[in-house]
Amino acid sequence: MATTPATPQEAWTNPLRDPRDLRLPRIAGPCSLVIFGVTGDLSKKKLLPAVYDLANRGLLPAGFALVGFGRRQWSDEEFARFVEQNVREHCRTPFNERTFRQLHDGMRFVVGTFDDPEAFTRLSDTVSELDRVRGTRGNHAFYMSVPPRDFPLVSRQLAACGLARSSEGAWRRVIIEKPFGHDLKSAQELDRVVSEVFEPQSVFRIDHYLGKETVQNLLALRFANTMFEPVWNANYVSHVQITMAEDIGIGGRAGYYDGIGAARDVIQNHLLQLMALTAMEEPVSFAAGDLTAEKTKVLSAVRLPDDFAAHTARGQYAAGWQGAEKVIGYLEEQGIDPASTTETYAAIRLDVDTRRWAGVPFYLRTGKRLGKRVTEIAVVFKRAPHLPFETTATRELGANAVVIRVQPDEGVTMRFGAKVPGTAMEVRDVSMDFSYGRSFTESSPEAYERLILDVLLGDPPLFPTTEEVDLSWRILDPIEEYWSTLGQPQPYRAGTWGPAEADEMLARDGHHWRMP
Amino acid sequence: MATTPATPQEAWTNPLRDPRDLRLPRIAGPCSLVIFGVTGDLSKKKLLPAVYDLANRGLLPAGFALVGFGRRQWSDEEFARFVEQNVREHCRTPFNERTFRQLHDGMRFVVGTFDDPEAFTRLSDTVSELDRVRGTRGNHAFYMSVPPRDFPLVSRQLAACGLARSSEGAWRRVIIEKPFGHDLKSAQELDRVVSEVFEPQSVFRIDHYLGKETVQNLLALRFANTMFEPVWNANYVSHVQITMAEDIGIGGRAGYYDGIGAARDVIQNHLLQLMALTAMEEPVSFAAGDLTAEKTKVLSAVRLPDDFAAHTARGQYAAGWQGAEKVIGYLEEQGIDPASTTETYAAIRLDVDTRRWAGVPFYLRTGKRLGKRVTEIAVVFKRAPHLPFETTATRELGANAVVIRVQPDEGVTMRFGAKVPGTAMEVRDVSMDFSYGRSFTESSPEAYERLILDVLLGDPPLFPTTEEVDLSWRILDPIEEYWSTLGQPQPYRAGTWGPAEADEMLARDGHHWRMP
Repeated sequence: MATTPATPQEAWTNPLRDPRDLRLPRIAGPCSLVIFGVTGDLSKKKLLPAVYDLANRGLLPAGFALVGFGRRQWSDEEFARFVEQNVREHCRTPFNERTFRQLHDGMRFVVGTFDDPEAFTRLSDTVSELDRVRGTRGNHAFYMSVPPRDFPLVSRQLAACGLARSSEGAWRRVIIEKPFGHDLKSAQELDRVVSEVFEPQSVFRIDHYLGKETVQNLLALRFANTMFEPVWNANYVSHVQITMAEDIGIGGRAGYYDGIGAARDVIQNHLLQLMALTAMEEPVSFAAGDLTAEKTKVLSAVRLPDDFAAHTARGQYAAGWQGAEKVIGYLEEQGIDPASTTETYAAIRLDVDTRRWAGVPFYLRTGKRLGKRVTEIAVVFKRAPHLPFETTATRELGANAVVIRVQPDEGVTMRFGAKVPGTAMEVRDVSMDFSYGRSFTESSPEAYERLILDVLLGDPPLFPTTEEVDLSWRILDPIEEYWSTLGQPQPYRAGTWGPAEADEMLARDGHHWRMP
Repeated sequence: MATTPATPQEAWTNPLRDPRDLRLPRIAGPCSLVIFGVTGDLSKKKLLPAVYDLANRGLLPAGFALVGFGRRQWSDEEFARFVEQNVREHCRTPFNERTFRQLHDGMRFVVGTFDDPEAFTRLSDTVSELDRVRGTRGNHAFYMSVPPRDFPLVSRQLAACGLARSSEGAWRRVIIEKPFGHDLKSAQELDRVVSEVFEPQSVFRIDHYLGKETVQNLLALRFANTMFEPVWNANYVSHVQITMAEDIGIGGRAGYYDGIGAARDVIQNHLLQLMALTAMEEPVSFAAGDLTAEKTKVLSAVRLPDDFAAHTARGQYAAGWQGAEKVIGYLEEQGIDPASTTETYAAIRLDVDTRRWAGVPFYLRTGKRLGKRVTEIAVVFKRAPHLPFETTATRELGANAVVIRVQPDEGVTMRFGAKVPGTAMEVRDVSMDFSYGRSFTESSPEAYERLILDVLLGDPPLFPTTEEVDLSWRILDPIEEYWSTLGQPQPYRAGTWGPAEADEMLARDGHHWRMP
């Protein structure tokens, strides 16, 4: 490995770049990234390629270092070959020998298990050596790509060898992924362990799915425009539907999924966060603290339905057809208890008790083996208070809607009524679309690229704080408790839009689910 | 010609049709259409083909009759051949022998000049014969496809032979086309002549350009939806731009155009009507009377600028390039006085002194030989009162706008700000579109089909009443008077977007013209 110290700041010296200009790429300062669980799937398919792509885009400092920690008896060189192989297979930017060579010089591998204090001493020595030879200046990020049960152990080992605390002029950061517990109690316990070891501002809770890109798109749409905010309230909005639909089944996740279910897996984190972003007041700024303050207010104002039977719905997919493919039901999936009562579909109604939203139901739904893979927020407006048309001419006129499409074709759709060409005065629903993909030549960075860069830059995440996580569990726990008293969830055929009780739940309020 | 009386109402008997259902085609009752100036260009290219297309779509009664009046010594049969030739050349629906044969049986030609009372007696005899043999029941519409100077003569002749007045159970209607005068005085004189002869509700003033389709699209967009009205006012709107741009020069219209100019030709009728429809309050219903009441209120509330020099602009096209074609200037056009001061471009600022619009300028512009043929209404919103973004990230962010495209690609465009994909928080303008042509399989009927059908149905036109015409001239006359004290209009190169003084006019208010 190279021993020539690089100038870690050299990437900053481009005279064309004004670092205050947010339109120009922000480049990480000197640092290293340590990955626990580096031989796992996430690391191989996402993290290592993301590190390479960031380097290839010129967003990493010249002296950047990458450290793997694992049980395999690898030399640094063997680790580098492992990285190269996975980067070549999964990188999004073209493979560039020169970029890889530069990264390669900063690669280290530490052999060890999580329960071995000596391995952590070796890790500490390794990062110190990097500080000297790569100029990483004591700045180190630790990526916990490990099962949640290993968090406490790894955290304590890092604390014991002195790597957990930031010091004057040098930072330490830790990245943990969802799930953040499976109920309020377990989330609080997890938080206690992490906060014993790390300072709160050093903990980056990551939910790659609800990437910063989505959050910022939503913020830009709502607050950079004049047209939307005036109608974004109970005076004009009838209700809001937030959907995350998957067409796949549980795949290889049986071990994790069974006993957890759709609501804990998706509603508690993704959908409540999307709801908070949709419903919140304008923050003072987009700084993490200001944003968190507004999201927290929304989550605090959430009111649960009085009658869970009427305003929640559960389902479990049965065998059916997914497109042209015949698929098995949840209870037939490998590794699933044939008597499992875990829901693969969940829908709940929530209210937000604020002046802005009083009386506007928020319907959250998610499910596996639904008709289509789609995540969207649909703000459905009330009908015009008066239609100066003959009634017969508006029978195909629905309600106006602004639909924020989160994935797969990220963008915005507006549905409104327009006159049908012809000699009669007939009004029918039409829609207009905006698509990020078709409107911009710039492509969205891969979620993990963005996330890793934000951590290295110390850009506080827009993701849930401990308080938000707790509030979310406080919302979900009573519903889970009610569901646990029921038997089997209502079955729905794979490839359909969920159980009948979900349709009835909306019909009771005079609404119906959008077909995305 | 056939002499078997048809059953004029048979088209109504389709049991599948509920005549109260506005979504179904409305079919004219028994009647005839008499065309003065039937050998002219408008008749050949538009009116005769429109009559045929209406018949072919099943919208005319079985016993419908078509009467030509002209100087040529034609038999009914010769007239029918003339009609057939022009229909075959210009019809929009396929040529169908059976349809034409049915129409053909009801065709008559009356030879005569406008100053010959005997010719009108023959016309009276002809329509009486049609009442007997075709069952037209005394219902006759007279289309004045003649120069305005002939209106008074033809009107008086119709009165003299007893054809001008409706009677119990039988109607008479007259269709006149714009221009409705060239200033307030001449408009009032024209109105006096017409109203001496016809009842007000029998006069159909037609402006084919501002077809009912456009009017109804605008009404549907504004009033069938929830999203637009809440922001359609001075709280949110910065200003409104109404543009009718032509890429052609004056063509063969030198005789009419010179001395009239762009403002009288387009602003007085088209643009003031579009402005009234954009600015008006919601009418009680879409009946002509209710609509007229609202449009009239807007026109009454218009306030002229204090300083015409600052808030109006005139231009005259000079030689230049229209696409790849080199074109001559207005003063070089055949038939134009080389010292003509007629404007071919006009722009004016108007204010509407109502609670809804106080402080919101309406900018109206029209011109020939501009960059592109387009008619649109752009409602430009104020910027968001506060942007919680870094300033550098919004430098390419304009104002939100809703643009109603009237032609050529009729539809709606919304411009708003969206985040540019990437690691920085940058917001940039994007737009989404709705197009009638791409969204509906139904095609818009040709303007003249729609207009003729409305006349035969007695559906009061959505077009200017006498009062609206008068109000429009009251707005324009003082500006014309001011312009008449100036010399030559400012020249602009053909193919550009008008004279510099038009740009300065908006720049003074802190705005700029949209590039459609």
